[in-house]
Amino acid sequence: MIQARETVSFKPGEVILYPGVPGPRDRVYRVLQGLVRLEAVDGEGNALTLRLVRPGGYFGEEALFGLERGYFAEAVTEVVAETLPKEAPPEEVKDLLCHLSQALSNAYRRIERLATQRLKNRMAAALLELSETPLAKEEEEGLVLRATHDELAAAVGSVRETVTKVIGELAREGYIRSGYGKILLKDIRGLEELARSRGDGR
Amino acid sequence: MIQARETVSFKPGEVILYPGVPGPRDRVYRVLQGLVRLEAVDGEGNALTLRLVRPGGYFGEEALFGLERGYFAEAVTEVVAETLPKEAPPEEVKDLLCHLSQALSNAYRRIERLATQRLKNRMAAALLELSETPLAKEEEEGLVLRATHDELAAAVGSVRETVTKVIGELAREGYIRSGYGKILLKDIRGLEELARSRGDGR
Repeated sequence: MIQARETVSFKPGEVILYPGVPGPRDRVYRVLQGLVRLEAVDGEGNALTLRLVRPGGYFGEEALFGLERGYFAEAVTEVVAETLPKEAPPEEVKDLLCHLSQALSNAYRRIERLATQRLKNRMAAALLELSETPLAKEEEEGLVLRATHDELAAAVGSVRETVTKVIGELAREGYIRSGYGKILLKDIRGLEELARSRGDGR
Repeated sequence: MIQARETVSFKPGEVILYPGVPGPRDRVYRVLQGLVRLEAVDGEGNALTLRLVRPGGYFGEEALFGLERGYFAEAVTEVVAETLPKEAPPEEVKDLLCHLSQALSNAYRRIERLATQRLKNRMAAALLELSETPLAKEEEEGLVLRATHDELAAAVGSVRETVTKVIGELAREGYIRSGYGKILLKDIRGLEELARSRGDGR
């Protein structure tokens, strides 16, 4: 059975993959355009972002081995992706390996942050990470991020109410300016410093 | 330049890899015997376990791509490992891919636990994970784990003082019996239940 390479498009908010054991028709995807978010959702509907996949990145790798998938993959923006053929050429396998190695290293940094950093410092790190995705745009006033407090809560592993407080704090201290669904990153250098430090103890 | 496959042995406590940018001579390792722990260590010397690598598992994958390594790799027991040749055969590359995919999925579960579970529930999960490594032995009285409170703190992302309290709590509630550097898992079913539930909210 030949499994061709297919190009597929998704609209913002569209769910591409659901949690569960991958079926025989499940594929590995490579993002060509847009942003895909992998997230776990708990029983109460709280989302937790696990990985952001930008153009050149992959997701759905567990389909290769029939490993259970623990996340939803959702198109954040308009997304164009291609599916990998079952027998991918060696350079592509190496590229996927590199992506997973990088994703693992990012996941380990998340674990370190969650174990040791205060929410405010984790939020600074999350804002900086999001600023390198298609959700950020250089506007007249500076770098502007489109993200709701729910999305920020998912990015740092917290809930909206708490995030709203922390965002208020960062705004009062001059790091950001916060508007409806929009955040202006005013002091990138300061945010980088926050992201590097732990806050106070664990 | 041919890079042969080499078999190497390490003693308990020996550091196999250090954090930093991999050099040209750095290799990917496959564990043949024993247990390897990948851990991050912060400025104050607090360790955080990122991955436990059992026989058949790999570590040092960042060397393939020159990605910066964020962890120490340490032999927990006597370890025998082999280095992968630079041009590994396709089946071995696929095996490595599978290991990374699994490691990523474990890391995501850790992130979920850290974001949503109480320490006591995370401790139950960590004890169960450790019980499937060479650190656990079936003895007359039941399944016994050799682990210090420092090691348990590293496994859950906390500090010794707090871990000592939680271990005391688990002991009082009949889940475990705790002795010097040894923990008897008395109620595996109960620990599994704890590991599945969140405690109370985040």
